[in-house]
Amino acid sequence: MIYLDNAASSWPKPPQVTEAMSQSINQYGANPGRGGHRLARQAAGMVEETRRSLANLFAVRDARHLLFAPSATYALNQAIHGTLRPGDHVISSAWEHNAVARPLEALRRAGVIEVTWLPPQASLASSHAWEKAIRPSTRLLVVTHASNVTGAIHPLAEIGSLAQSRHIPLLVDAAQTAGIVPIDVEAMGITMLAFPGHKGLMGPQGIGGLYVDPKHPLQPLIHGGTGSRSEELNPPLDRPVAFEAGTLNTPGIAGLNAGVRFVQQTGIETIHRREWELVHRLIAGLCDIAGVQLLLPDGEALPVLSFTVDGVDVQEIATILDQHYEIAIRAGYHCAALAHRSLETKTGGGTVRVSPGFFNTEQEIDTFIEAVTEIVDALT
Amino acid sequence: MIYLDNAASSWPKPPQVTEAMSQSINQYGANPGRGGHRLARQAAGMVEETRRSLANLFAVRDARHLLFAPSATYALNQAIHGTLRPGDHVISSAWEHNAVARPLEALRRAGVIEVTWLPPQASLASSHAWEKAIRPSTRLLVVTHASNVTGAIHPLAEIGSLAQSRHIPLLVDAAQTAGIVPIDVEAMGITMLAFPGHKGLMGPQGIGGLYVDPKHPLQPLIHGGTGSRSEELNPPLDRPVAFEAGTLNTPGIAGLNAGVRFVQQTGIETIHRREWELVHRLIAGLCDIAGVQLLLPDGEALPVLSFTVDGVDVQEIATILDQHYEIAIRAGYHCAALAHRSLETKTGGGTVRVSPGFFNTEQEIDTFIEAVTEIVDALT
Repeated sequence: MIYLDNAASSWPKPPQVTEAMSQSINQYGANPGRGGHRLARQAAGMVEETRRSLANLFAVRDARHLLFAPSATYALNQAIHGTLRPGDHVISSAWEHNAVARPLEALRRAGVIEVTWLPPQASLASSHAWEKAIRPSTRLLVVTHASNVTGAIHPLAEIGSLAQSRHIPLLVDAAQTAGIVPIDVEAMGITMLAFPGHKGLMGPQGIGGLYVDPKHPLQPLIHGGTGSRSEELNPPLDRPVAFEAGTLNTPGIAGLNAGVRFVQQTGIETIHRREWELVHRLIAGLCDIAGVQLLLPDGEALPVLSFTVDGVDVQEIATILDQHYEIAIRAGYHCAALAHRSLETKTGGGTVRVSPGFFNTEQEIDTFIEAVTEIVDALT
Repeated sequence: MIYLDNAASSWPKPPQVTEAMSQSINQYGANPGRGGHRLARQAAGMVEETRRSLANLFAVRDARHLLFAPSATYALNQAIHGTLRPGDHVISSAWEHNAVARPLEALRRAGVIEVTWLPPQASLASSHAWEKAIRPSTRLLVVTHASNVTGAIHPLAEIGSLAQSRHIPLLVDAAQTAGIVPIDVEAMGITMLAFPGHKGLMGPQGIGGLYVDPKHPLQPLIHGGTGSRSEELNPPLDRPVAFEAGTLNTPGIAGLNAGVRFVQQTGIETIHRREWELVHRLIAGLCDIAGVQLLLPDGEALPVLSFTVDGVDVQEIATILDQHYEIAIRAGYHCAALAHRSLETKTGGGTVRVSPGFFNTEQEIDTFIEAVTEIVDALT
């Protein structure tokens, strides 16, 4: 099996990930923060170590504002629902994943908020379109750091600087970039940063997180036991406990800890460079195939590549790659409805997306290019 | 280390749990339902197998209505927020965990709903108090199957029958009973059942679930990518996908699958009987110690035991047990503020809670009893 679907989930994981998860369950499988005995303390210690190392990765000064969440999707919903009030206006981009687009559209359809969706080229070009869309009622800017379809990267520092000067909170979806592109929440003017653990951070599925600026008032999405002040019906408001009600995903956090350590020891720059080498090889190979249309963004981009083939259904390509060549890629809309409408691929069934990871080899890329060549030859 | 804190998290786990988790990550660590390639299908297949085995455990006819959730706390919040509307009235018990009490109180304080909290003896005795509290605006009954403090069990079938005859949805918190007491959602008249994976079901922390009656209309708490119809901004409303936005906790579900299989192969009755043998031994031993006050419920109960010691701070007992005897129990309020107020232990710092599990031995119980005897001798 050749795995080229790292934008959905990175795979394989460094072997330390499953080791850390098994260790967390076998050696100190107690409930962190619930009970003062040594197993519970050991679990809590590992959780706090992971929190600090994530804080360090994103240049977060006070790790207490780095909250664990079951997924980036949950983190984004928490950020959106915990910030917006009736009458608020939000500006976002056509590149957003459904984890942003659907909660915002649900609130808009319910008449709670208004949303301006910036056109794809405009949101990427500069902060100009963002600035023009600001109204007196604008309470949130939401932007994906990079498109999960084309890999196009938004000018975050510029949008962050605008957000700060206009005192509007900025929520960033780092689903495709955390662990792959350096992120500095202060330098980039990010108020909230949502990230998954199972993509660039090399951790397991089922864990992610949300950074929230200490000064940003956020309401918790769910309430429950926090292991602290449990005699009180009013839940505590302090971070992180107010936002981590219920039992944490201890093995997931232990696995994420190991993944983040691997990323930090290897170096984000090294990972990024390696993935780009593979994508450049991909681009060079696919360019030579007649009928293949690459969706290459103009500016800075991530090592994620989308293409279509004239007159061929992308799902058919995916099926043949899987069944005949044992190559895993993803075909379709990639949960990014607005981007696909803009890219005019909607009627064609979306794109074929190839996303190599740190562990892929040149030979795997070459095998993939040969496979696409043969498929296109056979189908066109 | 002697671990007697199974009501917080069962430990140790059957060895199959970590094996299944590692296997899910190493052998098919793709994103279930995101992409049609074989690794994604293998992940999705395991998820659906687990869903069916949980459905089977709770006598759910159509497994599609068994939804995965990151925790029982999340499942309870989803059930509460997805059901209630402004002006609704809710009846619940003083035995509820903060995972029920806090979300309901938050809605009540915000002026959205009204809540009747039944007194502890009344809610346990029969469905009579529940019936008396019903108003025309009553839209939900919420009840914990069993108290996490004393182990007292509610007369679920009776409350369920009342709920059905009055057409009021019944939400049951099975945090302490799933995998320990047989549950039949249809026979018991349960509309929604929230459960954790990491307690009686022997799975890892970070995964749980919610059963929802097919006829009960429930709104999703969060929105996002569902892997299906991702070209649509309107999220699908069909279960389970509408309630499982974002990447699922695949390794957690794989571990839960192994835990549930262990429970089913061992038999819930066998597990329950074994835990009761240990608790009877505990009760007999602790009864003989002067100054120890056991909080034994009147009726049916779970194998969970709470006690206090006259004139001694429960936290001090817990600390000595941990540091001197290496015994892990839990002291405090156990996230059950209302129950403790009722039990009048609030000023005393709560209770010492001992919760043996299937893997404990008679010798461990005897060591615990000796330890408490020595501590009480020394401190009183």
